[in-house]
Amino acid sequence: MDIKEVLKAKIEVVERALDKYMPNEGSYEKVVYESMRYSVFAGGKRLRPILMLAACEFVGGNYEDAIPYACAMEMIHSYSLVHDDLPSMDNDDYRRGKLTNHKVYGEAMAILAGDGLLNYAYELMLKATLEDFNKNKLLASQEIAWSSGASGMIGGQVVDLLSENKKIDKGTLDFIHRKKTGALIRASIRAGAIIGGASESELEDLTKYAENIGLGFQITDDILDIVGDEKKLGKKVGSDIENNKSTYPSLYGMEESIEKVNFLFDESINLLRKYEDKAEFFIELAKYLVKREY
Amino acid sequence: MDIKEVLKAKIEVVERALDKYMPNEGSYEKVVYESMRYSVFAGGKRLRPILMLAACEFVGGNYEDAIPYACAMEMIHSYSLVHDDLPSMDNDDYRRGKLTNHKVYGEAMAILAGDGLLNYAYELMLKATLEDFNKNKLLASQEIAWSSGASGMIGGQVVDLLSENKKIDKGTLDFIHRKKTGALIRASIRAGAIIGGASESELEDLTKYAENIGLGFQITDDILDIVGDEKKLGKKVGSDIENNKSTYPSLYGMEESIEKVNFLFDESINLLRKYEDKAEFFIELAKYLVKREY
Repeated sequence: MDIKEVLKAKIEVVERALDKYMPNEGSYEKVVYESMRYSVFAGGKRLRPILMLAACEFVGGNYEDAIPYACAMEMIHSYSLVHDDLPSMDNDDYRRGKLTNHKVYGEAMAILAGDGLLNYAYELMLKATLEDFNKNKLLASQEIAWSSGASGMIGGQVVDLLSENKKIDKGTLDFIHRKKTGALIRASIRAGAIIGGASESELEDLTKYAENIGLGFQITDDILDIVGDEKKLGKKVGSDIENNKSTYPSLYGMEESIEKVNFLFDESINLLRKYEDKAEFFIELAKYLVKREY
Repeated sequence: MDIKEVLKAKIEVVERALDKYMPNEGSYEKVVYESMRYSVFAGGKRLRPILMLAACEFVGGNYEDAIPYACAMEMIHSYSLVHDDLPSMDNDDYRRGKLTNHKVYGEAMAILAGDGLLNYAYELMLKATLEDFNKNKLLASQEIAWSSGASGMIGGQVVDLLSENKKIDKGTLDFIHRKKTGALIRASIRAGAIIGGASESELEDLTKYAENIGLGFQITDDILDIVGDEKKLGKKVGSDIENNKSTYPSLYGMEESIEKVNFLFDESINLLRKYEDKAEFFIELAKYLVKREY
């Protein structure tokens, strides 16, 4: 399996679905839809929706059933970036080499476009659940809702915010990592598996896999912010040190951080070995994410 | 019926339910729950949840079935106020005589608390719908979602924002009024009626009633901003003129505005007369809202 090729094909599936589902309409309020689309289509690896579709297939489901939920998850991810980039938050002018939403549309519109994306994600999930009135789809929506809220991603953002310019302990850093990025990755895989009709043990294995790659992915981000190549990453490095931010490398040291990433990914691979061929995509993906750039 | 007493009793039902449903938890992220609760419990008439519960009862349903959805609607209303008050939006320091969320918790936390409230509203609706897996509850959630998004309230806020310091035409003002406040009021009544198992003609009558009082309520707000008593209203008046904002009175004149309000409320009362005693609350409420302050 050439994982890059496979991901490319999967990204295209997601892009097409997003284009289909993202509203492109409006009269007087047209600009808010433009602003919403601007950020959804500002690039990105589409990792969360891809994980959701793959988890659905992994357990024997039809990935098409998961598409609206996968798109909703990506919209939630997009809105969180729009709000995170705001002047009162991270105050970022660029993301993935493109101007951030508020630099193009202004701060007020960026707030409303973010709100609009979050709300639309739920509109989309409710519509899909009504079209096929099925308890698993409601359960999947709930997984996504839990992971996005104050008990999930928003909670992580809050603690990240409170930790700015402050030395934090390992417990706090763990909380931020688990919630801020981990929660959506975990929910993506779980939602896909639930829609696909996963057994309890499949759901458990996939959840552990998701937690491992979620944390591993985040530690890798921290590492790349120190040793990464700006051109390859498409973003500035060194911002964590500049912002005096506590990260995995700053609390545990670089060596232990790299060891931890490797451990997490090895464990996640071993966990799925028993599924043999079926697990190939997830195993290759874990390898790909481990080897990312450094 | 002493409408003020009835409303007081209904407000208490809503307050108790909100207190039950609003999370009051958290470890590292505790402050975001505090901030969310601060704005939900910063006063307010609880008009939207009261309308929802009343509509559910009106059509013969048990209002308790609608409580989680009514609370969700109030959380959505609250989040919209938190974001609306932000410096980059209306930049308000006070609301209902209390400091606005961002004046207490800072701008970044206010954005996240607003996001948290919106997301939590959906968590609550999904949970209630899973507990009683019932298509009407999903349909009601969808009504609420439509009314809150870019095709509803957010669309209204966007056009309101674009209209700042600008002379707008009647069509634009109508759009703002219908969407910015009208949409949630309409959806509150429709969601309650749907949960209660409304017939098609009941739903149609209640929808028209809601549209009328929604628009009437908003025009009354515009009127009160000119002729209202600051003490009674608990807020500054004259801000529309100060902000050079187009309002119903500025486009249609004061006399026509008052006539329009009276027409809308009369029509909404006449519409419900055929329901006789059952409609008493809605009729008294319409009268009460018409006679509001001026």
